[in-house]
Amino acid sequence: MSKITVVGSVALDSIETPFGKVESVLGGSATHFSTAASFFTPVNLVGVVGTDFPKEHISFLRSRKIDTKGLEITEGLTFSWRGHYDYDLNTAHSLETNLNVFQDFNPKLPENYADAEIIFLANIDPQLQLQVLEQATEPKLVVMDTMNFWIEHKKEHLIRTLQEVDIALMNDSEARELCKTHSLLDAARMVMGWGPTTVIIKKGEHGVLMFTETTHFAAPAFPLEEIKDPTGAGDSFAGGFLGFLAKNGDFSEQNQRKAVVYGSVMASFSVEGFGLNRFRELTQKEIDSRYCHFEEITGF
Amino acid sequence: MSKITVVGSVALDSIETPFGKVESVLGGSATHFSTAASFFTPVNLVGVVGTDFPKEHISFLRSRKIDTKGLEITEGLTFSWRGHYDYDLNTAHSLETNLNVFQDFNPKLPENYADAEIIFLANIDPQLQLQVLEQATEPKLVVMDTMNFWIEHKKEHLIRTLQEVDIALMNDSEARELCKTHSLLDAARMVMGWGPTTVIIKKGEHGVLMFTETTHFAAPAFPLEEIKDPTGAGDSFAGGFLGFLAKNGDFSEQNQRKAVVYGSVMASFSVEGFGLNRFRELTQKEIDSRYCHFEEITGF
Repeated sequence: MSKITVVGSVALDSIETPFGKVESVLGGSATHFSTAASFFTPVNLVGVVGTDFPKEHISFLRSRKIDTKGLEITEGLTFSWRGHYDYDLNTAHSLETNLNVFQDFNPKLPENYADAEIIFLANIDPQLQLQVLEQATEPKLVVMDTMNFWIEHKKEHLIRTLQEVDIALMNDSEARELCKTHSLLDAARMVMGWGPTTVIIKKGEHGVLMFTETTHFAAPAFPLEEIKDPTGAGDSFAGGFLGFLAKNGDFSEQNQRKAVVYGSVMASFSVEGFGLNRFRELTQKEIDSRYCHFEEITGF
Repeated sequence: MSKITVVGSVALDSIETPFGKVESVLGGSATHFSTAASFFTPVNLVGVVGTDFPKEHISFLRSRKIDTKGLEITEGLTFSWRGHYDYDLNTAHSLETNLNVFQDFNPKLPENYADAEIIFLANIDPQLQLQVLEQATEPKLVVMDTMNFWIEHKKEHLIRTLQEVDIALMNDSEARELCKTHSLLDAARMVMGWGPTTVIIKKGEHGVLMFTETTHFAAPAFPLEEIKDPTGAGDSFAGGFLGFLAKNGDFSEQNQRKAVVYGSVMASFSVEGFGLNRFRELTQKEIDSRYCHFEEITGF
């Protein structure tokens, strides 16, 4: 079993969807990732919160066996985000983003984090992603996610970080924007040209595509009865994906396909509740059963 | 091997996409369907054209072993359509639609068509679809397609026709519009409530979903290098789907899954050329090879 170190945001989210709303719940890319991955493997979390950050959230992360030694607590307020989704649930509309202590985040890896074999650079400033990576001593698998904001404002830094990465994760609109092409195949090839050997493109309700130089894999999304809150779905995907790879220790393309399905399973659970709620009650049996269900819906 | 009778439009299409344009080429729902299905099984075509319809088009259909006894030639002009697609290639923008002889179409099944085991009601007025179905003497499998226009203007007739149908085909936006829900799962259930035991929802570049009361199947679209013209992709899907079922004679859910993949294969070829061009040179070997490729890209 490999250890994962993740760097990303830890936030307090206020979310409204057509199916309800929540105020100031535990959120952030590193949080969603860690929680999903924790069902498979130990995770080291690197992030920053303010002194207002409720202790119960730290207790929750620890209860999931997430190492929070790298979660810095700094004078000031925790990064907070307020957003809503319309009926199509595909696009988050940001109403308020307060970076707060996140603005001066200067990520440092505690000693016991640096030797993690898997590094996940969740969606943050690509310069900070690189800074974390430079502190990692023996990474065997480096994976990064990003978002439109960095494509628009820090494209050169983003491409620089991509050069050091094995697997790039992004969603379809990000891939198209980054590579200025409608074709996801062309976009994936362009990204691979910058460094990664594998590109995974998340298409929300339409599933996931994974490209390598010579292979292509397409997984559908799980057909859900009820989607309450899509926040964190992409990070939960990454958590399931890397959690499975870490647990299994086999990073081959064939095993990465299974990992994509585990990622899709974790994303599908994530959206069934607000914030991290669904994960609070999720069982291993449910995860395994949904993986089997994926086999059923894709076999022909 | 079962025989298929199809009723639908036969048209002259003028199409512009970012990748080129063509003037007055052979088109129409019944034409695209028949041509795709003809790679698997004999097809009886029911439709109407005007006296302007080029004889070479009829020769082409016959060269594909499509029975054109049911293709009525009426005084007047053939149904013609002019449209263009933007870069996203998902939406056809109609510039001109001249129904011409299609306006008074009164479909009649020639004697040797009526006993076909498979009836495909391609996208035409649902009242005409029903009229054709009433002339079929021993249908074992009835499949229909439709489009937004009939959902908006003839919804009651559409639902009446659905009552007589085994498999309903529609695209995702049509399913959502017909059932007034964002959830494709809910939409499929509602459509099944009207009669069909199976609902197939086409999602273009995102693949296909097939629902029965107790099962769900998701197939991705083929990752194409180059899409020239999406016109007729849905009808080509239906042609591959029903062609395979007709050739194979097994209408079980398990076999319908393979048929969905053959449908996706034919749709993927269809869009690689303008009009029917890609089918003019397509080989059985290419079809089989792409089916195998689908197995490769979906296995995990």
